[in-house]
Formats: sequence, C-alpha cells, structure tokens
Amino acid sequence: MIKLHHLNKSRSKRIIWLLEELDLDYEIVAYQRNKDTFLAPDELKQVHPLGKSPVIEDNGLVIAESGAITDYLITQYGNGKFAPKSGTAEYIDYQQWLHFAESSAILPLLLKMFVAKDGAKTQFLEGYADAEAAKIMSYFNSRLEGKRYLVNDTLTGADIMMSFIVEIIKNAGQLAHFSHIAKYDEQLQSHEKYHTADELEAKYD
Amino acid sequence: MIKLHHLNKSRSKRIIWLLEELDLDYEIVAYQRNKDTFLAPDELKQVHPLGKSPVIEDNGLVIAESGAITDYLITQYGNGKFAPKSGTAEYIDYQQWLHFAESSAILPLLLKMFVAKDGAKTQFLEGYADAEAAKIMSYFNSRLEGKRYLVNDTLTGADIMMSFIVEIIKNAGQLAHFSHIAKYDEQLQSHEKYHTADELEAKYD
Repeated sequence: MIKLHHLNKSRSKRIIWLLEELDLDYEIVAYQRNKDTFLAPDELKQVHPLGKSPVIEDNGLVIAESGAITDYLITQYGNGKFAPKSGTAEYIDYQQWLHFAESSAILPLLLKMFVAKDGAKTQFLEGYADAEAAKIMSYFNSRLEGKRYLVNDTLTGADIMMSFIVEIIKNAGQLAHFSHIAKYDEQLQSHEKYHTADELEAKYD
Repeated sequence: MIKLHHLNKSRSKRIIWLLEELDLDYEIVAYQRNKDTFLAPDELKQVHPLGKSPVIEDNGLVIAESGAITDYLITQYGNGKFAPKSGTAEYIDYQQWLHFAESSAILPLLLKMFVAKDGAKTQFLEGYADAEAAKIMSYFNSRLEGKRYLVNDTLTGADIMMSFIVEIIKNAGQLAHFSHIAKYDEQLQSHEKYHTADELEAKYD
C-alpha cells in the first residue's frame, strides 16, 4: 500500500487530493510542525534525509518533490486520466505547469511571505519580492482567462499542483485582485475530493 | 530550427550545454540584463509573458521552465541518451532531480544570496536561509558520495539541471566545504560541451 508521509500545513495536502482522485488505497503517516518554530520534526529525516514533506513510499521506492510525486502517481495509476497524452502539445504544457508551480511561481510568493513575516526593513528585497509576486499572479490570472482548468478543460495534475499556489494567493488576501484565479479556485472547490483532502488535513493537524 | 531565447548570467546556459550534447541545430537569440538593476529586458516578454529565460521555440511550441525544457528536449531528441528508461526506478530518481534543482535546492540558496545582497539586518530570515541552504548542500554532497553522476553512472539531464546549482555553490565560495560536490564539479567539467556552453555564454554576455 502507498504510504504518504504527511506534514500538517504543507505541500502534502495536494498529494492527498491526488491520491483521493486516483481512488487509491493509501496510508497517511502524520507529522506535526513545531508550534513555535513551524519547522518539521526530526522524525521526517528518517524517511528522507531532507526532512521534508510530502514524501511517498510505493513499490520499494521513496519519492520526494511534489512535481515528481504527481508525475509518478498519475503515470502509474492514472489510467489515462489526470494528464494529457505524452507527445502532445498539451502534455508539454502540462509539464510546464508541474515545474512552474514549484519553481517560477512559488519562489517570489514565498519570498514575499518570508520578508513580511520577518518584518525587518530591507534595502530592495521587499520591493523585488512584491514586483515578482505581482508578475507571477497576473501571468497566472491571464492564463486562466476563459478557462475552467489549466490543460484540456479537465482536472489534471497541473491543477492539483497549482492548487497550493492558489491557496498561498488566497491566504495573502490577494484573490480579490485576480478574478480569473478566484473563479478557478471555485472550480477546484467543486471537486468533492478537494474537500476530502481538506478534512484529512484538518484531522491530522 | 530550435530557437533558444538566452539571457546572459541566467539559467539558460545549461540549456546551451544540453543542446550541444544533443548535437542539435539551434539558434541563440541573445538578451542582456540591465547593468544597474540586473533585471531581464522587456523584449523577453514578447517571447513569453513572464519575461524569463530560458525559453525555447520548437515545432511551433514555446516552452518555458528549465525542467520542462530539459525533459522535452531529451524525450524528443535524446535517442535513449541523457535519461533513464521511462518506468524504471532510475527514471523516477532522474525526475526527482529535475524537480529538486529548481524547487527544493534553489529556493534556500537564492534566499541566502538575496538576503546577503540586500544587507539589511533581519530578524530570522538570514539564519533560516543559512540553515536551509546548509541542509541542501550537505544532502546533495552526501548523495554524490562515491558517484560520478547522479543517475546511472552517466551524464543525464539531471546533471545538466544540477550544474547550475553547483555553480551557485561555487560562486558562494562553498565548494571547499563539500568534497563530493567539488569532485562532481570536476566531472561535469570533463565534458567538452560544458566548456562550449561556457564560451557561448561569454560570447553573448
């Protein structure tokens, strides 16, 4: 059975969502962040030396990195769903979103969050983070214009990966400025399993 | 012919290296960073709305994100080289490295670089960035112990993606502390095309 090493308030919730959509048997091994430092506990290092989450175990493999996990689970268990056919233009678009979510998109958004949380007066970092985050949000918003989903008008791993980015934007109170992202958020929430993942996240928090 | 939209001093150099290894016909369209702000020029936005580099054009497709470009080029033109066979455990490891390079690895390293460049006294950000960057470097170092390459004892896209991370570590003066990364750097430099990419980067800088 697939084992998901799950940390509360982490990127791991979207893997629960994916596992639920794939209707797979899986077990959640839950870990809690330190309440003061918000850091992951040391036990996670026994699963993977980086001590991060999500990490899955399946078929004797230990797999880290949300994008790689998403790719693996859909390739292995998707039965042609949740990803476009390999070799098509849509597949390449899909791969770009998998990478975009955890590279170009998340970096400025986290930077902005970190700088705000730190509170120190920076020379240029705050302005840089604000400008780059604004660029990412407005690009993402414009790509969603007139669309229900990112690729092929159906739910794919790209949407599940980007759902975490939508949450960051929402938690930063920015959704009101980006109407297409707001509408997309509603579309994601129309999936029953999205809420199952929310409930499981809450249960293990 | 493949078109590479190349920005000086950017993640784009490794795509030159890959194109050279694949022995493909391609054209470099060169862009220069603003000398004062170090930002990419606005012309890049005409290629891709994010205004980033690398971006490639091929077969009518415009592809961004280093990991997605690497994956695409090797799948399309690798003839079984530069990536393990799909469906193997090595392939999954390879995919993890493609994602790791631009997500888990680069985030703390860039954060540390940004905070140092900014110079402002932070509350916790500097300490956090230092600790996370140290974690990444020592993990990467330990994974390289006794190995010439990351996957399958041969050069793959994983090495080409991680070569940019090696450069960041080198430029930060940290290579002396991580002997396996230092040795790996020499191994990467044993490839003639690594230097071709360096020369082309210098030519367009």
